Amino acid sequence: MKSFEQLRRMKQQSPLVHNMTNQVVANHVANGLLAIGASPIMAYAKEEVGPIASLASCLVLNIGTITTPIFEAMLIAGHAANEKGVPIVLDPVGVGVSRYRQKLVKTLLAELKISLIRGNAGEIAQLAKVPWQAHGVDSGTGQYSMKKMAQEVALANQSVVAISGERDWISDGKRLASVDNGHQLMTRVTGMGCLLSGVCGAFIASHQDLFESTLAAHITYGIAGEKAAMASPFPGSFKEQFMDQLFLLNEGDQQRIKASEEKI
Amino acid sequence: MKSFEQLRRMKQQSPLVHNMTNQVVANHVANGLLAIGASPIMAYAKEEVGPIASLASCLVLNIGTITTPIFEAMLIAGHAANEKGVPIVLDPVGVGVSRYRQKLVKTLLAELKISLIRGNAGEIAQLAKVPWQAHGVDSGTGQYSMKKMAQEVALANQSVVAISGERDWISDGKRLASVDNGHQLMTRVTGMGCLLSGVCGAFIASHQDLFESTLAAHITYGIAGEKAAMASPFPGSFKEQFMDQLFLLNEGDQQRIKASEEKI
Amino acid sequence: MKSFEQLRRMKQQSPLVHNMTNQVVANHVANGLLAIGASPIMAYAKEEVGPIASLASCLVLNIGTITTPIFEAMLIAGHAANEKGVPIVLDPVGVGVSRYRQKLVKTLLAELKISLIRGNAGEIAQLAKVPWQAHGVDSGTGQYSMKKMAQEVALANQSVVAISGERDWISDGKRLASVDNGHQLMTRVTGMGCLLSGVCGAFIASHQDLFESTLAAHITYGIAGEKAAMASPFPGSFKEQFMDQLFLLNEGDQQRIKASEEKI
Repeated sequence: MKSFEQLRRMKQQSPLVHNMTNQVVANHVANGLLAIGASPIMAYAKEEVGPIASLASCLVLNIGTITTPIFEAMLIAGHAANEKGVPIVLDPVGVGVSRYRQKLVKTLLAELKISLIRGNAGEIAQLAKVPWQAHGVDSGTGQYSMKKMAQEVALANQSVVAISGERDWISDGKRLASVDNGHQLMTRVTGMGCLLSGVCGAFIASHQDLFESTLAAHITYGIAGEKAAMASPFPGSFKEQFMDQLFLLNEGDQQRIKASEEKI
Repeated sequence: MKSFEQLRRMKQQSPLVHNMTNQVVANHVANGLLAIGASPIMAYAKEEVGPIASLASCLVLNIGTITTPIFEAMLIAGHAANEKGVPIVLDPVGVGVSRYRQKLVKTLLAELKISLIRGNAGEIAQLAKVPWQAHGVDSGTGQYSMKKMAQEVALANQSVVAISGERDWISDGKRLASVDNGHQLMTRVTGMGCLLSGVCGAFIASHQDLFESTLAAHITYGIAGEKAAMASPFPGSFKEQFMDQLFLLNEGDQQRIKASEEKI
Repeated sequence: MKSFEQLRRMKQQSPLVHNMTNQVVANHVANGLLAIGASPIMAYAKEEVGPIASLASCLVLNIGTITTPIFEAMLIAGHAANEKGVPIVLDPVGVGVSRYRQKLVKTLLAELKISLIRGNAGEIAQLAKVPWQAHGVDSGTGQYSMKKMAQEVALANQSVVAISGERDWISDGKRLASVDNGHQLMTRVTGMGCLLSGVCGAFIASHQDLFESTLAAHITYGIAGEKAAMASPFPGSFKEQFMDQLFLLNEGDQQRIKASEEKI
């Protein structure tokens, strides 16, 4: 899968990732992108997001603490990104929690060409319109097949879809892969999914194949989580260790890869 | 006092705490609530705060970096919470620092049924209209009796009041308790009071008695601070250790309780 | 240079620093100011920033995630600070990244008396209107003389100018100093420049001489970075160590000073 070759290429390019993310995780996302070797920029003013998205290597839209002025700026940034062919990652944080978020996400998906939709099972289930019991912004539980959800939402939106969980599922509608890397402690630190969306953006910006680069991002990110959990079994120190491990990731971690592609 | 039984029950329920908090501490509050076992959600848009507050187990209003659009959303969320009987915690951060904050807090207390008001001595003194020399958002110093302040503000607002300090004071107007747990380093990390307000919300959401659950929250939170300070005597590493200790709190820490109830 | 005498005086006074900073770094800036011994306050509402800036010891304006409502509040706060003689620090984060930021910074410099402008080489080059290849909010590279830029921008704006980099340059137009303290890891944590602007504000608030106090802030801050890097060679743990080292700074670190003043 050449995940670590992609990581090395990404580090060399240090892509500029324009994050329009939520105020809870902005610091975590910026530090994580710096640690792994990308260049984060956060900008929200409607007067500047167009030009900034145009010169960025990727635009990441995260609705975690969305308000209408920021949503309007996201549309401006998104249209500018689409015009220049800058890939867009959408993270529909807690989309199931309110009609408002559902409406905003529906508009973003209708008006913009999204390259990658990344969320937890509850969030993707909402987009797939399948029954799911979410718990606030947490994933929740449901019976529906994850791989089927990933594939259907990918086909419906002509984008790559990644579902994060104990096992991650990634599909572009034609291909499907699962990733078993990662650690349960990653659910005890806020913004781990939001940062993964940013890291996916950095990988996508540095590689032609959306599916392959999304897969590489999930694999390397999960491995950083496993290594951090070995060093720090509790969430406070784990959070810092995880930043260190993002910084330290390298080819030597190849043998830790637990991922497989399946035919659909 | 059964503080740790309450902690265990709270962990089992993992209550959804809707935080409308300030942008300085949002990440710290979310991570602290995850570490101790609650489920945080942050949401600020007037279009969604009503429904979200209605489905939450508790609503926490924190005016730390308040602006008028967020204040208006707080009123919408607060009325929705009151209608559904969802308890509300108010953290009047730096209320003494401007007439604007004083006016906003006055409106919140007039329009909403608040279950708990939690602040430092300078903030509660402002509500009690007693002379106090605060220093920005820090507690400051004054001569007035803390226990008298707690009781008076509780009676005036028909809510529980908690004053954080070297000795915490908690009163519902009829009952009064003091807590000597905690550590001075907690004043060297921003958002420790804001996170305590969130933790109080999680305890209140999981217990019938507002006074008892507020007391249990202060006791367990203070013990986590003491244990963190033993491991890390400096503020940067203390902050991470504190998150670890929130995660590790358990019945074994019972003997650390330094609290007493007094008749009024 | 008496940098550590200035640090001690600053700790004694614990100046109230009103930060209007960006949402990515607000938590980091508040914790850093607490760690080194200052008192941070963040406030953004146009209804209160005037009174708060008036009672503060320093006002720090940072355009990192600026929006027009916050910009308008910055003007109100700035005018209030100027009226009371409260010094203002301007951190033109990523000013080269959009015409919008350039226009806002131009307005702030035209309407307000700014005591200190602190930024990286790319940001100051933008103000000096010299060619520079920045990368998002990162410094980037250029051929122009740093010391000449610092001096020219200082004279043009009648303020002290500090350029952060591997070697820092500080000038008030008449005097010029360079600081070689600091560590490369400081570029791998977001908000290290933003926090330095806040720390400069705390030093300026506690000392008469803007040039000397800016120099002392850069020296002590850089030394904290060197000591943190010795203890933690990776960005996650470095960030926490840095907070510890800000807390621990003392006269014993005198011999680490690597700075020199030069005649112009």
